[in-house]
Formats: sequence, structure tokens, C-alpha cells
Amino acid sequence: MIDLNSDLGEGFGNWRLGDDDALLGIVSSANVACGFHAGDPTILRRVTERAAERGVSIGAQVGYRDLPGFGRRFIDVAPEELTNDVIYQIAALDGFARIAGTSVKYVKPHGALYNAIVKHAEQAAAVVEAVRRYDPALPVLGLPGSEWLRQAEEAGLRTVVEAFADRAYTPEGTLVPRREEGAVVHDPEVVVERSVRMATEGTVVAKDGSEVAVTPRSLCVHGDTAGAVDIARRIRAALADADVPIEPFA
Amino acid sequence: MIDLNSDLGEGFGNWRLGDDDALLGIVSSANVACGFHAGDPTILRRVTERAAERGVSIGAQVGYRDLPGFGRRFIDVAPEELTNDVIYQIAALDGFARIAGTSVKYVKPHGALYNAIVKHAEQAAAVVEAVRRYDPALPVLGLPGSEWLRQAEEAGLRTVVEAFADRAYTPEGTLVPRREEGAVVHDPEVVVERSVRMATEGTVVAKDGSEVAVTPRSLCVHGDTAGAVDIARRIRAALADADVPIEPFA
Amino acid sequence: MIDLNSDLGEGFGNWRLGDDDALLGIVSSANVACGFHAGDPTILRRVTERAAERGVSIGAQVGYRDLPGFGRRFIDVAPEELTNDVIYQIAALDGFARIAGTSVKYVKPHGALYNAIVKHAEQAAAVVEAVRRYDPALPVLGLPGSEWLRQAEEAGLRTVVEAFADRAYTPEGTLVPRREEGAVVHDPEVVVERSVRMATEGTVVAKDGSEVAVTPRSLCVHGDTAGAVDIARRIRAALADADVPIEPFA
Amino acid sequence: MIDLNSDLGEGFGNWRLGDDDALLGIVSSANVACGFHAGDPTILRRVTERAAERGVSIGAQVGYRDLPGFGRRFIDVAPEELTNDVIYQIAALDGFARIAGTSVKYVKPHGALYNAIVKHAEQAAAVVEAVRRYDPALPVLGLPGSEWLRQAEEAGLRTVVEAFADRAYTPEGTLVPRREEGAVVHDPEVVVERSVRMATEGTVVAKDGSEVAVTPRSLCVHGDTAGAVDIARRIRAALADADVPIEPFA
Repeated sequence: MIDLNSDLGEGFGNWRLGDDDALLGIVSSANVACGFHAGDPTILRRVTERAAERGVSIGAQVGYRDLPGFGRRFIDVAPEELTNDVIYQIAALDGFARIAGTSVKYVKPHGALYNAIVKHAEQAAAVVEAVRRYDPALPVLGLPGSEWLRQAEEAGLRTVVEAFADRAYTPEGTLVPRREEGAVVHDPEVVVERSVRMATEGTVVAKDGSEVAVTPRSLCVHGDTAGAVDIARRIRAALADADVPIEPFA
Repeated sequence: MIDLNSDLGEGFGNWRLGDDDALLGIVSSANVACGFHAGDPTILRRVTERAAERGVSIGAQVGYRDLPGFGRRFIDVAPEELTNDVIYQIAALDGFARIAGTSVKYVKPHGALYNAIVKHAEQAAAVVEAVRRYDPALPVLGLPGSEWLRQAEEAGLRTVVEAFADRAYTPEGTLVPRREEGAVVHDPEVVVERSVRMATEGTVVAKDGSEVAVTPRSLCVHGDTAGAVDIARRIRAALADADVPIEPFA
Repeated sequence: MIDLNSDLGEGFGNWRLGDDDALLGIVSSANVACGFHAGDPTILRRVTERAAERGVSIGAQVGYRDLPGFGRRFIDVAPEELTNDVIYQIAALDGFARIAGTSVKYVKPHGALYNAIVKHAEQAAAVVEAVRRYDPALPVLGLPGSEWLRQAEEAGLRTVVEAFADRAYTPEGTLVPRREEGAVVHDPEVVVERSVRMATEGTVVAKDGSEVAVTPRSLCVHGDTAGAVDIARRIRAALADADVPIEPFA
Repeated sequence: MIDLNSDLGEGFGNWRLGDDDALLGIVSSANVACGFHAGDPTILRRVTERAAERGVSIGAQVGYRDLPGFGRRFIDVAPEELTNDVIYQIAALDGFARIAGTSVKYVKPHGALYNAIVKHAEQAAAVVEAVRRYDPALPVLGLPGSEWLRQAEEAGLRTVVEAFADRAYTPEGTLVPRREEGAVVHDPEVVVERSVRMATEGTVVAKDGSEVAVTPRSLCVHGDTAGAVDIARRIRAALADADVPIEPFA
């Protein structure tokens, strides 16, 4: 059993990004932007309603307050403020999810915040605190070995591990940094094959050729280009062929 | 029995406005800014926690998305978008209210939106729709005779009427427009005296000297200057002297 | 001789809109968004540099301060504030234009502001005042018969009239309002043919079949979709075939 | 001869900060916020006009694009974007300065950006590049020994050194970090006395009691509280008593 998660609702006002409707036919979990790095109330309304109709789980994709930077720039926010920024985002999205007859089911940080809290202990603690205060029953999604999941677990939150079939792995099971050559796997065939192997055998071939254990409950797929949506669709089909049920984790 | 309501949480980031702590010792209902015209997540957190501690009811003070204009400029927002903007604001504030052990108890529009929906039927309907979708048990606060309260009642919402002791009234019981001379009552003595009369006899002396019936369940007091806070304090004391209990309506 | 103008630089941060590079090969005047309804500093830098390289005139496409609404919603801004908002936008864009070796050559309001100042005398005066204070030698672009051009002329500014080949005209030479049926001409052939006739004969066939005089110095073409860019390209080619030189007005 | 500089124009919309009018009667150089961390077009207009009337030099106080954080949080902006953000701010302010009959005379970074480019070479280079491209004749204001001034000098810009009479210094002549005890001098008498000594003898008594050379061309004074304005006034008076002319450096 595996979950497919993707970022949705990342337009703003007159601007669109990605094909939300196509992705809602592919993924089982939608990381919905909450308005701080992308997303506006009308987009939140629409995406939550369609996700609910299709039985796709709604997650709060929380980010730094940075529309011009799309949440992709580290901001040295004070932990207390970050906690409140995250609560605000989860609560706003949850309002729309509840109107759509469901609720926010998990939390996944976005962009620079996602990257920062792999190691930044204070900001990781701030996001954990936000989830714990908003609803300690909400699972959190992230990278194994990150401060984010370590502290979340310590705080009694349910942690869910995700993997990236289009990213190279080190022999230690961590992601090869984007700035290094070969960090991203571009060949759609290989990405699809790696997805199936991650889901069925719990392994991935690392950069040095060795086999590494990864046991994701969720695979992150992209949807910001037509090509990306197509790869996501092929991953879904390949998992079906391999008899792997695609089920939300939450 | 009367309620005293006032606008709170109207700072932003490094900027402060009004004396929230002083007002929380005076009013029974706090109209808390939700981030669209004023208010940031850390302010929302702090105000909701202190209001909860002091037993002050928390209302969502929803406005146009316009920080540079402080929500004081009419914006011709499409009704569907306005509905979603209002849902977003109520939901975000409600998240903090629930963390503080309470919840949003009512909705009061702010500034130009408050003024617009006295007559603007489409925008009034949009705000009513937001409340109805978010929680049809939430009362709404406003002016008698407004489209806002008329449509809210029609939609089955509980409507609560407020009055302004520092505003001149016409013989018909409506507010004298601000642009007319004498629209605002500046003498603190007179404002205090009018407050007590509104609360005890349900009347106010109109601009032409006639006595007009106003039967507010709530009086709106201001807190944006030191002088305003002082008047609010005197109104509270005068009501106590007149044996009028000050109780939230929600 | 005719000018072709189009809106450019209307992305923001990670969001793109329209094909600026393609349009810069077609138009003679670029209405560049200045950051209030769209456009960020990096986009302004890039568009001004490329426009300068290609000899395309740079105009300040000034709008209401409303990123979430893309400047398409009327905002009841006080005239003094509107004047300053417009000065700020022109000056910011002019900084990049001067770095690129040129300067802002004209001003064209955007979206709801463009529409408002056809009739809204106070806001029209506010925008005229902004141009007059920033640089009274700057021409302004707009609709004939508008308050905007009338007041600009009165203030001694050079006014330039534009026409829209894809919009239906009334027998009086004004645009058929968008809400009316047939307001927009969709057939590319017809749009191209009307463009040439406007440029060569100074006429357009109105909605009722009558011939109306329009003597635009500039035609506004769109570039927000691939189809729109294609039509713009065909208009340019048809004008060349008709031996109409395409020259900036400023 | 010494210059007194202070931050001005740091309100936004309905929010005020500091007493601009009082400060314009005290300082010789006004670091005017440009809209990215504080300041809106109407504030820029008003401050530049009054500064021009009083012969106070106008500097561009450029910051990160972060109204909610008041520019006090480090943001990991890409250098190219930072360059463009800074150009945008200088150009917008310069528009108002020119309308007021003067022009931007220097550049001083604000808050977290000021602190970052003491050491952050890439961001320092980005701000230097912005000034160099906008107008290489503009002097830049900052801390001696900073990357900011070092690179500015290397790029051929005129660099101007400032000192802080209310901050403790190390024996090496650098500021004692704010997080350390005794970093800020609170006693107004001492602050005034240190100001005069900095201006007349070019020295300050460091934290360890040793005398350190500082030869500022400008002293930074604060104006964000009534107390701060009072100290600034006393510094001006004490400098007059010591026959030190107060003159802008630009």
C-alpha cells in the first residue's frame, strides 16, 4: 500500500500553476497551499471541494509568509511567530476543508521551510508546536532522519515518511543535494521504475549503485508542468499494474 | 443588559494600534482583526488568549484584503471571492480561539465593508453566505435596517443590533453621515450619558432634538486613542452605576 | 503609421503570464506592469532590458495596489493616495528603464483603474496629477472621450488615442460594454482585418453596421494566451502587407 | 563636522512609527523607508517634501521585502533578485525626492539586511551592484570593517562610516552584539557625552575601559519613541555647545 502526494492550489489571484484537476485524478493526498507562499481563498475553496468530492486527503502545505519568493527562500522567523504563522495557515485551510465535508488530515511544510527544518532545530520545534497546539491527532509528512520528524515523534505526533522517485539517494539513504550533479532523475522510465520499487520492495538504487532501504508510506509526485503530470499518471498506472493499492495515509 | 464591543488586534508586525489590554478590561465582546485589513498571526494568538482568560467574547472582524488601506476603501470584489475571503478570515481566527479554549462567537464586518453592506446587496449576500457556510449558529452584528442584517435574518442567522453613542442620529434612527457637520459627538460627558440612555431607555436624542427609539443589544466603543479608551472606561462605570449588567450577547 | 501596444511583465515571483519575449518581437510599445497589480523588480529589470535592446518603447502600466485582484477590481482610493501610488510605480519602472539606457516614455493605466477613469473625475485627476508631477513631458495613452484624456489634455499633457480591433464599437465610437453580447470579436480574421482598416482608413464597422471614425495612433493587442500572441503576430504582418509602418508614438 | 542620521517614514497605511516631524528638526540626513519593510507612497511623498523644505538630505533606507517582519528577519534572497529589489526601492524614493526638488543622496540598508551584509559577501555584492547600476555617484552609509563598505569601496563608491553612541564597542572598534549584556547604553547622559566625544575626538570608551578610535562622518540617532527623540535633541544641542557643525555628508 502506498500514498501519492503532490502540491496543489499553488496559484494566486490571476496566476495559475500546475494542473490541479489532473492531479486530483492521480494522487491520494493533496498538499494544499494555504495562502502564505501561494494560494488564495478562492483557490482553497475550489481545491478542497474537488479533493473532497474525489476522496483525496487534504493536507496543509504550510510555508513562510513570502508570496514574492514562493516560500522558496529561508526566512529567519522567530520560532514563536513561525508557530503562529503555521497555526493560521492550518486553521484557514481547515475552514474550507470542513465546509467541503472533510477536514485537514495532515501537515507538510513547503519549500524553504521544508528544507530548513531538516536541520534547523528551533524552526522544526516551532512547526511541531503549531501542529500539536492545533490538533495533536494530525500526522506530519517529511523526510526520515529530519529534525522535523524526530521532534514530531518526540512530541507524540504521528510521523509519515515520504520518498522522491525522481531524486538521487546517497548510500546512507539521504537525498543527494540539488546542487550536485545527478541530483535529479530526469528519465521518466527510470522514475516510474524507481517508484514501483520503492513501493513494492522498499528500496532504491543509490548514486553509487548500492541498494538502500527506503520504506516510504507516501511518494511525492510533481505537477507543475505537463510533463510532470504525465509522469505522475504513469507512476499511478505502474503501481496499479504491480498490484500496489494507492491509499491515503490519513 | 448590554454588551460593549470594540475593535482589537489591529496592529500588524512591528506596528501597534490601540491599547488591546486596556480594552479587554472594559468590553464584553472583542472584534478581532483577522489579518486582511490588520492583525497578524502573533497578534491573533495573543488577543484571543487574553480575551479567553478574561471571559471576553471573540468576534471575527472581517474586512477587505487591503493592508495598505486598513480596509477603509471600498473594493469591488466579486461576491464569490468575498465569500471565500470572509471564510478564510473567520476560520483563521477560529483556530486561535479554539487553541485558547473558546471559539469565534460572532462576525462583525470592518470599515469599508461594514459601510458597503448597509446597502450593497451582492456583497451583503456574500458575507451572509460566508457565515452561513462556516457556521450558521454564529450571530452577526450590525446596523438595524441594513441589507447585511436583513439578509442575514432571511438566511436564518441570529442578528444583533448595535448602536454608537458617539454618533449623531437622524429622526429616522439612522446614523448621520460622517461628512455632515455634527455627525460625531465629541463631548465625553454627552457620549457617556447617551450610552446609559441607550442601554436603559432604548432611546437617543436625534439631531433635530426628537427622541428616537434605538434598542441595541450592543454598544460599540472605540479604543484607538488614549482618550477613546478613557471614554470607554467611563461608559462602563456609568452603566455599572445605572445597574445595567454588561454581558456578551454571544 | 501606427503603434502596437501590449501589456507585458505581468508575472509575479514564481508565476508567469503571457509570453513577453514573443510580444517584444511584435509590438512597438510595451505597457510594463510596475509591481502594484503584477510585476516584481526582477521582471521589471528583465522586460525593460529586452525592450530597450529591441527598440520597443517602455510605458508605465500603472494600477491599483491589488496583487490578489490583479488590479481588476475598482478600489475607492483617495485621490491624493492614488496620485502617490502612481508616482511610486512610474518612478520604480523608470529606474529600470534608465539602467537599460532608455526611460519611461508614456503612461497607460491598467484594468479597473483604466476603466474607472473613463468617467471617475477625481481618480482621473489623481492620475493626471501624478504624471504631471513626475514628468509633464510624458504622453498618456487611453480612450477618446474619457475623463482621463480630457483632463490630461487640459493639464497640458500629450494625449494618445488607442483602439481595440477585437472589441465591438457603438455607432458613437465608444466600446460596447463587455457584459453585452457581441462585445468581443473572436474571429482572428475579422480582428486582423479591422486592425488594418483602423490603421489605414481610420474607421471601424460599428455593431449596427454603420461605419465609425476612429483615428487611433496605437492599437492595443493582447498576449496573455498563445492564441492572442498569434493574432498579434498576424496583425503585424497584415499591417506590413498594407505598407503601414509600425512606429512607437513616444 | 558631523552628520546626524535617523530612520524616517517607517509607518505604513494607517500605522505610524516614530515622530518624523520632530526628527526632521534634529537630523541632517533622513534614512527614508522605501516601501519594502515600511513606508507607503503617501508617506514617502510627505517625508521627502518636508525633508527637502528643511534641507535634510534624503537617503534610501532599503530593506528586505518583508512588511510583516519589518525587514528585521534575514531572508536568503538570491543576489540577482536582491539587486533588483534594491534598485526598485531607490528608484521609487528618488521619484518623490525629485518631485520635492532634490534627489536621493545616499543609500543605507535597513535592519536584517544591514546586519547581514556586514559579513554576507554575496548579498553585500548585490546591494553594491544595485547602487552602482542606479547611480555610481551615490555614497553608501555603514559600519567600518563591513563587507558592505569594503566591496562598495572596491566598486568605486564613496563610503561613509557611521557610529552609534548608544551601543557598546569592543576594544577592536566593533559593536558588542545585541545579545550580550551591556550591548546598549541606556543612560541618556552617557549617550550624549559619547556622541560629543565621537564627533570631537574621534574616540569611544570600549567595554573594557580602553579608548578606541572611531572616526564617524555620521552618528545614527533613534526616533522610534518619545524618549529617543528627546535624546536625539540633546545630542544635537550638545554638539552645538561643543561647536561641532552638523552637516549632511551628501
